[in-house]
Amino acid sequence: MSDTLSCKGFKAASLAAGIKVEGRLDLGLIYSTAPASAAGVFTSNLVKAAPVVLSKKNMSGGKARAIIVNSGNANCCTGAQGMTDALEIAETVAGQLGLSPDEIVPASTGVIGAPLPADKIRKAIPDLVNKLEPAGFEGFARAIMTTDTVPKLEKRQVQIDGQPVCLVAVAKGAGMIRPDMATMLCFVCTDAGIEPELLQTVLKSSVDKTLNRITVDGDTSTNDTVAVLANGASGVDLTSEQQIRQFQSCLDDLLMDIARALVKDGEGVTKVVDITVCGAASEADALKMADTIAHSALVKTAFFGQDANWGRILMAAGRSGVKFDFEKTDLYFNSVQMAAKGMTCGPDAEKTVTRIMKDSEFSVTLDLHDGPYSATMITSDFSVDYVKINADYRS
Amino acid sequence: MSDTLSCKGFKAASLAAGIKVEGRLDLGLIYSTAPASAAGVFTSNLVKAAPVVLSKKNMSGGKARAIIVNSGNANCCTGAQGMTDALEIAETVAGQLGLSPDEIVPASTGVIGAPLPADKIRKAIPDLVNKLEPAGFEGFARAIMTTDTVPKLEKRQVQIDGQPVCLVAVAKGAGMIRPDMATMLCFVCTDAGIEPELLQTVLKSSVDKTLNRITVDGDTSTNDTVAVLANGASGVDLTSEQQIRQFQSCLDDLLMDIARALVKDGEGVTKVVDITVCGAASEADALKMADTIAHSALVKTAFFGQDANWGRILMAAGRSGVKFDFEKTDLYFNSVQMAAKGMTCGPDAEKTVTRIMKDSEFSVTLDLHDGPYSATMITSDFSVDYVKINADYRS
Repeated sequence: MSDTLSCKGFKAASLAAGIKVEGRLDLGLIYSTAPASAAGVFTSNLVKAAPVVLSKKNMSGGKARAIIVNSGNANCCTGAQGMTDALEIAETVAGQLGLSPDEIVPASTGVIGAPLPADKIRKAIPDLVNKLEPAGFEGFARAIMTTDTVPKLEKRQVQIDGQPVCLVAVAKGAGMIRPDMATMLCFVCTDAGIEPELLQTVLKSSVDKTLNRITVDGDTSTNDTVAVLANGASGVDLTSEQQIRQFQSCLDDLLMDIARALVKDGEGVTKVVDITVCGAASEADALKMADTIAHSALVKTAFFGQDANWGRILMAAGRSGVKFDFEKTDLYFNSVQMAAKGMTCGPDAEKTVTRIMKDSEFSVTLDLHDGPYSATMITSDFSVDYVKINADYRS
Repeated sequence: MSDTLSCKGFKAASLAAGIKVEGRLDLGLIYSTAPASAAGVFTSNLVKAAPVVLSKKNMSGGKARAIIVNSGNANCCTGAQGMTDALEIAETVAGQLGLSPDEIVPASTGVIGAPLPADKIRKAIPDLVNKLEPAGFEGFARAIMTTDTVPKLEKRQVQIDGQPVCLVAVAKGAGMIRPDMATMLCFVCTDAGIEPELLQTVLKSSVDKTLNRITVDGDTSTNDTVAVLANGASGVDLTSEQQIRQFQSCLDDLLMDIARALVKDGEGVTKVVDITVCGAASEADALKMADTIAHSALVKTAFFGQDANWGRILMAAGRSGVKFDFEKTDLYFNSVQMAAKGMTCGPDAEKTVTRIMKDSEFSVTLDLHDGPYSATMITSDFSVDYVKINADYRS
């Protein structure tokens, strides 16, 4: 197997523990062979799954060694039993790996409110540990999928002071996706060495620019977790500002690719659309307006219908709560102007825009002519299949 | 024709002016034969259609005599020409009825951003005025429909000091519906006599309890208008507190029926669901949480799928921004408890709830056990047909 998807000092494994339908991978493990700095961002939803509460606690000291993830059940709204299950799973993993239970980061994803089949998971852990291998990330990426249709796995390498540093990111998520801290599950392994506090700062900055700028359906998961382990196995310790900048830039690039992949594989998605608001009086204004447009059901169904119904975009801008003069506003699809000063550019523009909307990816830009600030959200269309997938999710 | 849908001192008319597909009613007129007090609430969307701007201005003095409405075109994002068109339509109506242009309330509904075919409208106005008759409300209700499948027309009579007072309400709206001031177009005619300031207060109070508590898709129209004309033709002048209370209660009841009818006929709707949050620490908290649940795409698609996926309701509650303890929360479908203290009540409860969800109307109640306050939102499911209707709206 190719080792392009490995990272020095990390191993991963996956198997089918019988949580999902027979035979489908549903349990994954990542293990750092050396002690690692750890940083995480977690869901802002007040209804938090048991593994989120436990992972947050375990990572609070800035150290972790292993990540254990099941799909098929969120272990959320499962009461005291849910927390007992999460703790026992962490203990079992720790026992098998010779670690302390608080070095384990547990995560779960799937249906909310159903009891976790914890026995199946605990029984499978010895086998899972035996399967750990440097090239195990691809299987891990498959094991954490729910309604995802493709695994999300990206690698970056960057030269820092002439030495190669590697970052591998694995993520899942296709629904219950909206930018509010983190987005579903995303795990990053790097062989860089970096202090935990610094790692947390770099991670937060990256997430705000990437995973917090995407939406599929506007719902925030109860299980959102982004965790980074940095084990220093490359021999490169990041200490200088210049080194941190290089690492930050590489992480930003990596997580932006992951973010785009999540939207592209969003439930029922046929279009990925970059919504940019520019010429705004502040970045907060630009983001608020881009966010409202990105979440509008009427805008998203028009994308699905490949309908240049641009008035809906202005409608959504107008209800965003941002003060602006729509009669100064210009609207573009890619580089083609559709509206000038809040009015249509006519049937020729509409014909061209209709052609652009047949592509699976395009951009929409609203220029408010009100200042120097801009912001971009990546959104999807709202399709018949999104509704079908979510009406039938448990059936 | 039955006169049950008439109101003393009011006439209405409708015709096909050729704005919509040939032969479909698309122009309506309401006329008060006597001077009338007028009150209105308008869209909070910053992108306002020309007729909204003009109606707001014309009603600012608390008086109006006629309401002219076209469907098939919103006259929004149409620049200076849009305002010229609205003004000329008001002037034409005023000329034909012997009124001043500022006694006319224009309204438009349909596609945003397309130039209004104002010539067709102006040419049709003399004919429309000739058709005015007391029983003309039903035709008017049909003329203002867009994606509505049934006309919305309700009448109430109330005895005040032993004398009958009548209220007739006509409304349209099936998409771009969310509670943010008013909801699409709704016109109320009453033969009560009431001072404009008082009428405005009564109307605002009613709208906040009724039309502002419904949602179909979370998008706020650029053309939302609720207008009331009160012409005093019943001979009953409302002055005492007792009289106002009786009138308020009758208007509340009328607009609640209209609000429910709008959701029921919402685009692609197969379920109408009352979402109640009770046991909240404040009414604002209860409303905020009910509103978030009512707008969740995942909750709404589960309603469509008749899937008792109650965890999504807690997920939406948890992202509402309201502070609460989900491990104290109970959840009911009608009177059947589905979750206790944030955990499932088991497979039997789920079976019963699945049966309840097969009905076209049911209620969901979340009890936070955190205080004495409650609030209800009326929402719909999110169906395959909603997406189809809005993907193909202009095609």
